[in-house]
Amino acid sequence: MGLIPAAVERLTAEFGRLPGIGPKTAQRLTFHCMSATPEATDRLSSALRELHDGVRPCTRCYFIADGDLCAVCSNPRRDQSVMCVVEEALDVLAVERSGEFAGVYHVLGGALSPIDGIGPDQLRIDALERRLDEGDVREVVIATDPDVEGEATAHYLGERLVSRGISVTRLAHGLPAGADLQYADEVTVARAFVGRRAL
Amino acid sequence: MGLIPAAVERLTAEFGRLPGIGPKTAQRLTFHCMSATPEATDRLSSALRELHDGVRPCTRCYFIADGDLCAVCSNPRRDQSVMCVVEEALDVLAVERSGEFAGVYHVLGGALSPIDGIGPDQLRIDALERRLDEGDVREVVIATDPDVEGEATAHYLGERLVSRGISVTRLAHGLPAGADLQYADEVTVARAFVGRRAL
Repeated sequence: MGLIPAAVERLTAEFGRLPGIGPKTAQRLTFHCMSATPEATDRLSSALRELHDGVRPCTRCYFIADGDLCAVCSNPRRDQSVMCVVEEALDVLAVERSGEFAGVYHVLGGALSPIDGIGPDQLRIDALERRLDEGDVREVVIATDPDVEGEATAHYLGERLVSRGISVTRLAHGLPAGADLQYADEVTVARAFVGRRAL
Repeated sequence: MGLIPAAVERLTAEFGRLPGIGPKTAQRLTFHCMSATPEATDRLSSALRELHDGVRPCTRCYFIADGDLCAVCSNPRRDQSVMCVVEEALDVLAVERSGEFAGVYHVLGGALSPIDGIGPDQLRIDALERRLDEGDVREVVIATDPDVEGEATAHYLGERLVSRGISVTRLAHGLPAGADLQYADEVTVARAFVGRRAL
C-alpha cells in the first residue's frame, strides 16, 4: 500500500539480508537509523564501503589481513610448528581469546557437507597440504566445530594427513565450562565420559 | 594486539552502536559482510547513505514521508475526524497492521519521562493542539505504550484536551491475543478485570 517510502523499504530489506536479522529487527534498525543523525548513519555506511577495500584473506592462512599476511602469520613470535585448522575466520578469534594457543592457523572456509555440495575441493585443503609440504609443521590441531559437518571434516583430514608422520590432534569434547550437568544434552555427556581423565 | 584490521574493527564498532546488537553479534555481522560479495555490502552501504536524502518526517503528523505529507495524510480516503496519537513512527505500523483504524495519526516523538528530561515541551503536543484547533477532529485515540511513561503521557493528554469538548479515548488494556492466563503478569490481569465486558 506504499505506506513506507521506498528508501525505508530498501534499507529494511538490506538489513533483513544479514544473518540472524528478522523482518521486525530489520524494521527496528531502519527506524533507529532514521531517528539517528545523518552523520551516525553515514559512519556505518562508510565503514561498510571501506570494508572490502582494505581487507582480504591472508595469502597463507586465509584469516583476515590488511596486507598479504595476517597479524598471526607475520608475527615472528608465533610457533610455526603447530597449526590449528578451523572452519571460519571467526573461529580464529575464539581460539585467540582462550589464550591457549601460540601457533599459526589455517582457515578451511567451511566444513564438509555433501548435502550443500561442499566436498574436499570446496575447502582449502590443497592449500593446507602445500603448507605442510614445507615441512615446518609437526602438529596439526583440528578445531572444526563439534557438529556433524565438523566431525566429518576432522575425520576426513585425519585420514588424509595420517601418512605424513606428523601429529594430528582434535580439540577435546566435553562439558562446557560453567554448565549444569542436568541440562547438558546426551551427546555432550557421552563424549565427556569417553574423554574422562584421571584426577 | 592488532589481530584484526582497522577496517574490520571500525565496522564492528558501528554495528555495535545499533540498538539490540551486542559485541558478538556485531562481530558476526562484520564477518558475514567480509565473506559476502562487495556488491552485497555496497547495497547496504548505499541504502544507508540514501536514507536521509529522501525521507523526512511528515510535516503534519510526523510519520515518515518522502514528500511533505506521509502516505496517510495525503490519502483522501482516511477519516480526518479521528486521530490516533502514538509515541513513535513504528507504532503507526503496528496500528496499520491491525487493520482496525482508518483515521489519521499524530506521532509525539516519545513519552513523558521526567527522569530522562522529557517533559511536554519535548514532545509534539503543541503541534497536536494546532491540528485540533483546525476543528476537524472529533475523537482523539491515545495509543501510547501501556508502560509507566505511556500511561503518564496518556493521562497528561487527557487532562490537557478535556476542555475541548472532543472525545478522548485510550486503547483497551487486557490480555494479549494468544496469551496464557497463568503466565500473564498481575498488572495485565488486574487491568483485564477492570476492563471486563458483558458477553
